[in-house]
Amino acid sequence: MEKNMYYIGIDLGGTNIAAGIVDENGTIVCQTSTPTLKERPIEEIMDDMAMLCFKLCDESGISMEEIEAVGIGCPGSVDNKNGIISYSNNIPMKMVEMSRYMEAKLGKKINLENDANAAAFGEYVINGGGAQSFLFITLGTGVGGGVILDGKIFRGFNGVASEAGHMTLVHDGELCTCGKAGCWEAYASVTALIRQTKRAIEENPDSKMCECGTVTGRTAFDAAKAGDAAAQKVVEKYCRYVADGIVSLVNILEPEKVCIGGGISREGDYLLNPIKEFVDKYEYNKYCPKTVIETATLFNEAGIIGAALAAK
Amino acid sequence: MEKNMYYIGIDLGGTNIAAGIVDENGTIVCQTSTPTLKERPIEEIMDDMAMLCFKLCDESGISMEEIEAVGIGCPGSVDNKNGIISYSNNIPMKMVEMSRYMEAKLGKKINLENDANAAAFGEYVINGGGAQSFLFITLGTGVGGGVILDGKIFRGFNGVASEAGHMTLVHDGELCTCGKAGCWEAYASVTALIRQTKRAIEENPDSKMCECGTVTGRTAFDAAKAGDAAAQKVVEKYCRYVADGIVSLVNILEPEKVCIGGGISREGDYLLNPIKEFVDKYEYNKYCPKTVIETATLFNEAGIIGAALAAK
Repeated sequence: MEKNMYYIGIDLGGTNIAAGIVDENGTIVCQTSTPTLKERPIEEIMDDMAMLCFKLCDESGISMEEIEAVGIGCPGSVDNKNGIISYSNNIPMKMVEMSRYMEAKLGKKINLENDANAAAFGEYVINGGGAQSFLFITLGTGVGGGVILDGKIFRGFNGVASEAGHMTLVHDGELCTCGKAGCWEAYASVTALIRQTKRAIEENPDSKMCECGTVTGRTAFDAAKAGDAAAQKVVEKYCRYVADGIVSLVNILEPEKVCIGGGISREGDYLLNPIKEFVDKYEYNKYCPKTVIETATLFNEAGIIGAALAAK
Repeated sequence: MEKNMYYIGIDLGGTNIAAGIVDENGTIVCQTSTPTLKERPIEEIMDDMAMLCFKLCDESGISMEEIEAVGIGCPGSVDNKNGIISYSNNIPMKMVEMSRYMEAKLGKKINLENDANAAAFGEYVINGGGAQSFLFITLGTGVGGGVILDGKIFRGFNGVASEAGHMTLVHDGELCTCGKAGCWEAYASVTALIRQTKRAIEENPDSKMCECGTVTGRTAFDAAKAGDAAAQKVVEKYCRYVADGIVSLVNILEPEKVCIGGGISREGDYLLNPIKEFVDKYEYNKYCPKTVIETATLFNEAGIIGAALAAK
């Protein structure tokens, strides 16, 4: 009888550490999480990551022996080859030898990836349909990106490629948290959408948007769907910002598929249709097969699945 | 005794067809050219391309038997796999089966590439130093790009990737010839520089720039070097446009090396230094090895060498 092979995927986030046992097909068999408490020493965080792995085995009845490898997705600049986190500002880390530490704790082969790359790989495996080239974009607090070429994570020569959020969309435009002006992230992130919504509320005191308490990424979308003209303008403009960045990436990379993730992708066709229309009209390629654009389906699970399967 | 192997590279341009015999190391042994006369039927152009190949053999004393393969670089969207030019607006072409036609004429294996990709490959072979990833940018009438990953031309899933000139630099900015607003090409091409120079001349009737007859890509650079303040502003702004686009590409691709070509790259450090300073300051990666940025050295020969060696 053939033995099933399992992988553990750990998604080290700024708020929670999520972990799961994943089978060869990318199905999560069992998952768990614990708060990151990111200000504490990184060794304590890593100890909790190891603890989660044992807890998963205990809860699922799958023994640690059946775990082939452990994959970790974490924020920041990752040296995949040497298993080191070069730098992260989200969870404060600098030159952390995470793979070595975790290997000693678990006795397993460890694979370390940037979290956006891991999530991209997860979406690719489950929804990529074997695309020759695949671009994953997350619209969240920031704008993250991950590129999969010929089934492999594209990392650039130094491991830190696919920072699509920090391409310029508006030369000399709004200042980004990275220190550069006009980054795509400063216009297309949910943080930016909230800023755009707040400005519209100030300018349109009669808008339905003013009726909500706290402004979120959903405020403008909800009011727009209810017919509010000012909100419709916010959504229209926001979708154009997102789409214009996607056109740039399509023109540069010509990926077979683009997948848009992050919480806001739950807006589905209401977000996707204006983007597709803009890309179709303005992309440079008019005579060759076109890039397919879709919204993500895995949401938070993409990180666990991708980290696990990248370790395969 | 081992026989030397040779390749023919053909650079099909809008004005001239340039062709050369290239040895295995990328050295041009012999070259020639003829006007394209691009309005005539494409068959006549291809017949001239074949004629140039025989002429090269005749002039060099290298027999057609010693030619291993023939490479062609041509404008537009190229289906490399099937040897077809899907579309070009520069030289009017649509679904031209160029490889089949040329193979029948020459009895040689033909490899067809987009011209910017061929030039990128030429610069990569001669000046890339075996970089794991290499980005070539040409600043000319438009802005072209070519990406070499692991020694291979990166084409995207449909053969038409690396249109970096058509990423957005200014959302809703100047209209580009491609139909989209705010393309990098509309700010960083020599055509754009000439437009920027002409505007500065109108606004500064006392500038040294006004003393030249016809405004070219050199006008502002020459006057700036002579100490003209208005020209220095034009150059400074132009370099920032170029640099901001390069930062975007570095953040997305993290290439080991970027090479800037096109006639204007002859300005050397006067162009390169402000670009390097901007990129160093604003690129997202601050803790990992950095992309090296250089100007091209091959100029017009890059197309011939790259087309030839891509056929290898």
